[in-house]
Amino acid sequence: MSAWVLPDHIADVLPSEARHIEELRRELLDTARGYGYELVMPPLLEHLESLLTGTGEALDLQTFKLVDQLSGRTLGLRADTTPQVARIDAHLLGRIGLTRLCYCGPVLHTRPARPHATREPLQLGAEIYGHAGPEADLEILQLTLDCLRAARVGDLQVDLADARIVNSLLLAEDISETLRHDIHAALATKDGSAIDRLTADFAPAHRDGLRALVNLYGDATVLDKALECLPQTPVITEALSQLRWLASQISGAAISFDLGDSRGYAYYSGMRFAIYAKGASDALARGGRYDGVGAVFGHRIDRDRPAVGFSLDLKELVSAVTPLALRAAIRAPWGNSASLRSAIAALRSQGETVVCVLPGHESEVDEFHCDRELIEAAGQWLVQAL
Amino acid sequence: MSAWVLPDHIADVLPSEARHIEELRRELLDTARGYGYELVMPPLLEHLESLLTGTGEALDLQTFKLVDQLSGRTLGLRADTTPQVARIDAHLLGRIGLTRLCYCGPVLHTRPARPHATREPLQLGAEIYGHAGPEADLEILQLTLDCLRAARVGDLQVDLADARIVNSLLLAEDISETLRHDIHAALATKDGSAIDRLTADFAPAHRDGLRALVNLYGDATVLDKALECLPQTPVITEALSQLRWLASQISGAAISFDLGDSRGYAYYSGMRFAIYAKGASDALARGGRYDGVGAVFGHRIDRDRPAVGFSLDLKELVSAVTPLALRAAIRAPWGNSASLRSAIAALRSQGETVVCVLPGHESEVDEFHCDRELIEAAGQWLVQAL
Repeated sequence: MSAWVLPDHIADVLPSEARHIEELRRELLDTARGYGYELVMPPLLEHLESLLTGTGEALDLQTFKLVDQLSGRTLGLRADTTPQVARIDAHLLGRIGLTRLCYCGPVLHTRPARPHATREPLQLGAEIYGHAGPEADLEILQLTLDCLRAARVGDLQVDLADARIVNSLLLAEDISETLRHDIHAALATKDGSAIDRLTADFAPAHRDGLRALVNLYGDATVLDKALECLPQTPVITEALSQLRWLASQISGAAISFDLGDSRGYAYYSGMRFAIYAKGASDALARGGRYDGVGAVFGHRIDRDRPAVGFSLDLKELVSAVTPLALRAAIRAPWGNSASLRSAIAALRSQGETVVCVLPGHESEVDEFHCDRELIEAAGQWLVQAL
Repeated sequence: MSAWVLPDHIADVLPSEARHIEELRRELLDTARGYGYELVMPPLLEHLESLLTGTGEALDLQTFKLVDQLSGRTLGLRADTTPQVARIDAHLLGRIGLTRLCYCGPVLHTRPARPHATREPLQLGAEIYGHAGPEADLEILQLTLDCLRAARVGDLQVDLADARIVNSLLLAEDISETLRHDIHAALATKDGSAIDRLTADFAPAHRDGLRALVNLYGDATVLDKALECLPQTPVITEALSQLRWLASQISGAAISFDLGDSRGYAYYSGMRFAIYAKGASDALARGGRYDGVGAVFGHRIDRDRPAVGFSLDLKELVSAVTPLALRAAIRAPWGNSASLRSAIAALRSQGETVVCVLPGHESEVDEFHCDRELIEAAGQWLVQAL
């Protein structure tokens, strides 16, 4: 085995792609900053129970574990940044009012989330804490769309759902965790006959509601159909009316609904969205409401805060957008004259890349695309096209 | 144990510091880009032997290990990025000529490197491969100084040394690895009597040379003294003359020498430097020449490439420079009128931070420092001082 073979689903990011990721990182963090989201940098390593409390089994299986030599305790490498940001909101900042936070950093997964996924996504996201109303849902959705526009993703497709619809139908029945899991799985694959079988003992309203969800996807007419087929409980009525309002507030993106979609059901507590580049099968960004995610970290009961957020993987995003054009550089001779050095420094301070040709390397093909060179003429250093 | 207690020597980076680190990250990567260094992003996880081959015991002890569920093999979390960048130069790029690479990302240490150090430094560095002459040493040293100037570190102090001096005196003696280690440790603490004891059996020229190194630190007169006290071998003469030349090429920083300094002796093969903010005891950046670091990764003998590089910890750097001033923001009301939304979007596209006051949060103290607000007057949205 060669020393340079990387583990499966782990890769280096080489120069042209790395520069593009860095530019996306800056544009997206600046977009979040423009909305008033403050940057935080939680650590890669934490005590395992901090990372996993209240997050469900899926995250546990995705999390690499190791032992801390200093304490003997088990540490986890973060597989998701949201629980850490919730901890920062709840414990470290402890603000009463709104808190808007964003982050960008690697996360690690024991297994790839999809067949061709990396095990080291570069996760970027933003979260707003402290507002229970749909205005926060809208702000996060608009911010996510603006981030994808800043990355120059073409036609955007927004899929909307609300976790309260499925959850309220299931909560009305006293069922085992296994059955709950199986019903979510059947909804995810839109398997109507499995739903029929699994809900045979349910009250008719719940059984019919869950069965109807299998077909409640598509354009805005889905919301009208849902009003007909789902029980008219206050929770469901509110969820549907908030989805309708949210859709009415969004421009510049195609909107569809998938009311039975329940990926991440252990996590979300309200509105959820997934955003796709038109024609792509994997979402570029996902988000939604997960009220109470930070409750476990607080000293006081009021740290059980409303929360909405989104996240995306910059490595995934970069592969969905047009590569950057090469940025041209200036070739300069090597020398120790003060005038040459100050000419180079002046160009660099203007944002130019100036590559010095070190002695003996004059005939090498440039590693950079140099379209100009610095030459001396009549005692002056001048930039000239190559 | 509260769920929010972090492991020792692991910390969150909160907003004001995180923003400053992000700005330093951008300024330093842009400085490296100006010199023609291309960004790469090696993974956090690799097979342990890739991370550690040829790097010495110290890095092994610093490296967290875990098991890959996919392969059953042992993985390491990188404790240093340089071996990875050498692997990228040697295997992935495989260029014949010069290659200039830079990087920025977290590394993890099993134990803190110093009593108050973090176990998760944010390492930023640059490396040049393929040039054996002192021009590459100078370029890296100038780049490092420009990075620290971009970070607005005050008076800079450069400490220069050359690993060839100590190494050539020791190589001339056939000694055990333990004795070599002990001599390096005695040189590091400038313990002359320990050197006398450890080198009692050495040839007089080597014994006297090692003993002299204990006192060979200070300003440029050290180089003259070294010519008198050290054996006049070709290697030592060349090392001293290159140090003299390097010092003559640097302006805007105080220069000193410490010829017996042998920290990282298993790593460096030539010129080495450490840069301090005046009066500080810990170096802000370290670098030097480590020819052949990538040899183990190549297919061909010629991948044993000359290499010079530097690295620093952005978390350490940020604590050594003046905090950023608060960046003021604009407060805006929440509303769904198209004119309000386009006024906000226009301000954000100009780089302003516009924080929307969500309904019910009008009386909260701003999380951001808002010094202006967006108000409607005569059907127009205007920014007005607060």
